[in-house]
Amino acid sequence: MTTKARDLGLGTGKKARLTRMLYRHGAGNGTALFLPYDQGLEHGPRDFFANPAAGSPSYIMKLAVEGGFNGVAVQIGLATKFYWEYAGEVPLVLKLNGKTEIPRDGAALSPVNATVEEAVRLGADAVGYTLYVGTPAQERDLEQYREVRQAAERLGMPLIVWAYPRGAAIEEHGGKDSFYAVDYAARVASELGADVVKVNFPHPEKRTGVRPPYEQEYSQQEAIGAVVRSANRSLVLISGGEKSGDDAMLEKARMSMEAGATGLIFGRNIWQRPHDESLRFAARLREVLDKYPR
Amino acid sequence: MTTKARDLGLGTGKKARLTRMLYRHGAGNGTALFLPYDQGLEHGPRDFFANPAAGSPSYIMKLAVEGGFNGVAVQIGLATKFYWEYAGEVPLVLKLNGKTEIPRDGAALSPVNATVEEAVRLGADAVGYTLYVGTPAQERDLEQYREVRQAAERLGMPLIVWAYPRGAAIEEHGGKDSFYAVDYAARVASELGADVVKVNFPHPEKRTGVRPPYEQEYSQQEAIGAVVRSANRSLVLISGGEKSGDDAMLEKARMSMEAGATGLIFGRNIWQRPHDESLRFAARLREVLDKYPR
Amino acid sequence: MTTKARDLGLGTGKKARLTRMLYRHGAGNGTALFLPYDQGLEHGPRDFFANPAAGSPSYIMKLAVEGGFNGVAVQIGLATKFYWEYAGEVPLVLKLNGKTEIPRDGAALSPVNATVEEAVRLGADAVGYTLYVGTPAQERDLEQYREVRQAAERLGMPLIVWAYPRGAAIEEHGGKDSFYAVDYAARVASELGADVVKVNFPHPEKRTGVRPPYEQEYSQQEAIGAVVRSANRSLVLISGGEKSGDDAMLEKARMSMEAGATGLIFGRNIWQRPHDESLRFAARLREVLDKYPR
Amino acid sequence: MTTKARDLGLGTGKKARLTRMLYRHGAGNGTALFLPYDQGLEHGPRDFFANPAAGSPSYIMKLAVEGGFNGVAVQIGLATKFYWEYAGEVPLVLKLNGKTEIPRDGAALSPVNATVEEAVRLGADAVGYTLYVGTPAQERDLEQYREVRQAAERLGMPLIVWAYPRGAAIEEHGGKDSFYAVDYAARVASELGADVVKVNFPHPEKRTGVRPPYEQEYSQQEAIGAVVRSANRSLVLISGGEKSGDDAMLEKARMSMEAGATGLIFGRNIWQRPHDESLRFAARLREVLDKYPR
Amino acid sequence: MTTKARDLGLGTGKKARLTRMLYRHGAGNGTALFLPYDQGLEHGPRDFFANPAAGSPSYIMKLAVEGGFNGVAVQIGLATKFYWEYAGEVPLVLKLNGKTEIPRDGAALSPVNATVEEAVRLGADAVGYTLYVGTPAQERDLEQYREVRQAAERLGMPLIVWAYPRGAAIEEHGGKDSFYAVDYAARVASELGADVVKVNFPHPEKRTGVRPPYEQEYSQQEAIGAVVRSANRSLVLISGGEKSGDDAMLEKARMSMEAGATGLIFGRNIWQRPHDESLRFAARLREVLDKYPR
Repeated sequence: MTTKARDLGLGTGKKARLTRMLYRHGAGNGTALFLPYDQGLEHGPRDFFANPAAGSPSYIMKLAVEGGFNGVAVQIGLATKFYWEYAGEVPLVLKLNGKTEIPRDGAALSPVNATVEEAVRLGADAVGYTLYVGTPAQERDLEQYREVRQAAERLGMPLIVWAYPRGAAIEEHGGKDSFYAVDYAARVASELGADVVKVNFPHPEKRTGVRPPYEQEYSQQEAIGAVVRSANRSLVLISGGEKSGDDAMLEKARMSMEAGATGLIFGRNIWQRPHDESLRFAARLREVLDKYPR
Repeated sequence: MTTKARDLGLGTGKKARLTRMLYRHGAGNGTALFLPYDQGLEHGPRDFFANPAAGSPSYIMKLAVEGGFNGVAVQIGLATKFYWEYAGEVPLVLKLNGKTEIPRDGAALSPVNATVEEAVRLGADAVGYTLYVGTPAQERDLEQYREVRQAAERLGMPLIVWAYPRGAAIEEHGGKDSFYAVDYAARVASELGADVVKVNFPHPEKRTGVRPPYEQEYSQQEAIGAVVRSANRSLVLISGGEKSGDDAMLEKARMSMEAGATGLIFGRNIWQRPHDESLRFAARLREVLDKYPR
Repeated sequence: MTTKARDLGLGTGKKARLTRMLYRHGAGNGTALFLPYDQGLEHGPRDFFANPAAGSPSYIMKLAVEGGFNGVAVQIGLATKFYWEYAGEVPLVLKLNGKTEIPRDGAALSPVNATVEEAVRLGADAVGYTLYVGTPAQERDLEQYREVRQAAERLGMPLIVWAYPRGAAIEEHGGKDSFYAVDYAARVASELGADVVKVNFPHPEKRTGVRPPYEQEYSQQEAIGAVVRSANRSLVLISGGEKSGDDAMLEKARMSMEAGATGLIFGRNIWQRPHDESLRFAARLREVLDKYPR
Repeated sequence: MTTKARDLGLGTGKKARLTRMLYRHGAGNGTALFLPYDQGLEHGPRDFFANPAAGSPSYIMKLAVEGGFNGVAVQIGLATKFYWEYAGEVPLVLKLNGKTEIPRDGAALSPVNATVEEAVRLGADAVGYTLYVGTPAQERDLEQYREVRQAAERLGMPLIVWAYPRGAAIEEHGGKDSFYAVDYAARVASELGADVVKVNFPHPEKRTGVRPPYEQEYSQQEAIGAVVRSANRSLVLISGGEKSGDDAMLEKARMSMEAGATGLIFGRNIWQRPHDESLRFAARLREVLDKYPR
Repeated sequence: MTTKARDLGLGTGKKARLTRMLYRHGAGNGTALFLPYDQGLEHGPRDFFANPAAGSPSYIMKLAVEGGFNGVAVQIGLATKFYWEYAGEVPLVLKLNGKTEIPRDGAALSPVNATVEEAVRLGADAVGYTLYVGTPAQERDLEQYREVRQAAERLGMPLIVWAYPRGAAIEEHGGKDSFYAVDYAARVASELGADVVKVNFPHPEKRTGVRPPYEQEYSQQEAIGAVVRSANRSLVLISGGEKSGDDAMLEKARMSMEAGATGLIFGRNIWQRPHDESLRFAARLREVLDKYPR
């Protein structure tokens, strides 16, 4: 990373924090396995019925430490009340914006719930921001994003962008996890200064209404490769999304790392199962990461 | 330039930076050939399928240095992560606003993604702002433009206005590249203090619904001449737009320079072809510029 | 003016600047002939086809000096790039807001493009603000007007209000140049603190839909007299509007001065004709003003 | 002035105000005769015993108008209470700092009593600042001067620096009106951005303790010539100082203008005599200025 | 420079501006020859008697262009009124603080006369700050230095520190140009964040009262080598000081470059001689620099 981060054009503080997360935690080889835990806000408690223990932030924090995750991503309330116990043992990613799934998604905008300065105060090693690429609310979204980006720059805090295509126009052009939409979203995050970009695994087979070059046939490997290239110097994390079969997830992980991604950010696929299975699955993902030192 | 820039009513810092770009780079005779590279945000990665190498900002920065361009125009993310390698070797134009093409264009507004102060911090020699002339969002657009203009004045930073007619009313009156619309846009940029204005080449044959004096027949040379006069002391750059035939582009360049334009800002026509062809085409454009010292 | 301006309740700086414009320029007798030149923004370059030379702000600035005008009114871009050559030779009126005519006018609002402080920095002797009286956007219009008025007060800068009736409701009640609408607009400007108010010459014959007292028959002289009285201590300037016959304009001027107006603000009627004719017509208008010392 | 002021590197507002003062008042040929009237603060009323009428600021303001002075320089209190009557008839120079002569002068510092913004509000055409060159208080003096200079730049207000050598070290090196001290003071004002510098006429015969090159013999004409050159693009005004013989003053004026000074700033020599004699002497000074158009 | 500047830990803007000055001006090989011209403030006009033409800032600016200097260093007044003519043709170094030599030097402090923002507005490529190392005023000096350093960081402006030992304690310990004092000053500048440090050539033979290790005998080459090492990643410029013999100056230059200095900053040794001789001597210095590409 030492060499790599310099090539990324990062300031000293961002480099220090990224190096810490990627080389002193997890596989320790510049790859990453993050544990996201903002589903309680985004989806509500329904996500915890599969494994009620996972409804407890303490349980998750402890899991992140035990599982050797490179970081745990939470909203301000959980960070404030639960991170102090594990502060310094696992890196904290403070998710700065977030919303409920209750109102319609047509003009989705994720409001800012905390600041970069609060992330500093809590000892976080990165902040997260959800950018809804393509919605009619794009104007306000980009404005609040700009302020977050500038604060992150000023305070040397790595900025992870959840780059999520959304809105009616996206639905007309392949949908939110089409290759077209994910590729565009990765590029937008890169153009606008994300240090790390979190995307869904792209679906090249979703071609209805997409722009010309995406109408052709692409393999999954080709698609994820293009997305990583579109992100260029923004490190890429692949979302796990809804819980799915382990082998499919592992294959997704392998293809992503093969394509040059930095790592994975898997939540429900980790904690929507009993504690020991969670650790076992995390270990299997780590084995994939071990093969792709950065 | 000494005499010229003084006549332009420019402050010292704006003159220093413009002189540097126009007389110490490129043809070095007061003309300009800029390389714009914000299509990744404006159109998404689809523009890079013709020449995948061009998807890499490093490739483009290097091309700008090798091709002796007068500057490369990018968004904040790419400037932050890629310009430092070439800092001081090719002038940087920081594009301050920008948006995706995904939502509908009816009330187009390009949100501000970066500030003039950031441009200064990155060592830029100019900033760019897209003003959508004629849209229903005109009010908010002019307000955010005013703040950019004032910051550019305060920090001695040349302001390049992408003067783009847009919106339903424009579509009813000749369309966005009609002589009527382009001429009006050039004038608006000048009235509101652009140091440089970037316009599309005007189409005098698009006359449906235009205002009276534009209903008559004008040659392309007459139209571009009028546009340059409407810009008066704002230097004029002609956009290349979509990739087109080389001879047509060279003729467009020649007519523009003959009309008094300062230069060209060609992106896709340059980098949507293999590396060596890009350099060869840039050299042919330079030959045109060589004939029109300012 | 000494006595007069004191009676107007003006602070020292406003009085100094008004005295300078009205007694040390033009007829020098407290009357005024201003040259407005913001049509390039408001209407686009189409207004310059009648006399292409007038498309050049330099030409206009020189005309203002040669013709002995009491001031020239322009937007910030032209003031910045063209006034320095003539700075101190003819007073500058910085027009602070303005818009294009492209989007529909139903809820017209003229966004603020420059500040009173910028007017001070450029050495202006007055600022101009277009207030669209009666539009649905009145609320935002009055808010931004208030800020301009307060800044003008703080910096001793005379405030000229372009009081223009506009919007659907106005169209239903006599139209924008009916006696009813102009009279109301003049009063609004006065009620809200204009130092000078610019109005169109009122048309008492436009009576369709006007409020009761305006339904009666009034002579033009009665109408303009009423408008000047409605403006009370706001000095009145009469707009020239579109180019019209010289004799009609001179008669309009005479009636206005007879009614107590301070002067005229004629643009297209001046510069939409060859240079020498412009000067000759300005001289004829001056002859009218000479007869009405204030 | 057009050409000259442009060469001076002045912004538009400074040029407008200087042009106004130097070309539309007084001799009207780019020279200047200013009337300073801050002696009531600097020396107390003792200066008015010679001509008690001159104790009245109204008397002085009226004299400035009648005598066709290029400006009258006063402190904030007099500007506020007396200038409004003559606002716009004679330019106002607001003296921003000043002090009494009562405490010892060893570490002289002239505190700031008003701001550039107040000068703008009062319609002033210039501000004045006394810089005591060489005193032990130099550090604080330069700091408050910097703020005045920056405000004057921001508001386009010409800055006249009263460049006065002072303090024990000056007394040891030739004294405050030695050629050495005046020459250094003129240069300091120029190095630090004065638009106009007011100096005492230099005495080349005061050579005790001066730095080497000043130990030689110089004529008065050589000395004043060197001082004007040291001021380079800062216009030079020569102080009258204490009342002296008319012929000596006229000769001093002639030599100064011959050397390239812009004009004179004579107070006590003007108003410490009866009204009509004041006007007659001003007329004789004007005759000198008439011979040196700038 | 690409490699080198990266190693210096510089942000993008600082790198852009340093690269421009060191690789696109002068010898163009990463070395530097600067022309300092703040002696009019620091010493007064006495420095110009040897070559009166040099009293004119225009003469100096032109000399800097003709002589191919890497930059010209002046105070704010001269930068404002003289640089615009040559803006963009030779880099500007805005000297931010400065003082007269008139008051005693015992507790020397150089007050801040201009800001980094003003340097940006004027298009400067670096700012200069005089830090008097060792004076009793050290506390206030370091405070105002900190603000300058922070502003330079925020705006990407290279900071050149004139590291000058001064004050009674220095006089007791070898004097201001002793090896001991210069070596300490170079280290202080480096410890406190100078991008470039300007020092006098060290005199190892001045050993009276110096600290133990400096009491030994060192050659001049050893001394300058140590000073450059003390500056570590702050680039070193050697001052010319008072005019001296050409061969001695050339030898000083050679030893400095051999020791790893980046270049020279010679004023009086350049411009205290006739114009053509100045250019000839600059050319001889350039020959030395040509041998030490960085």
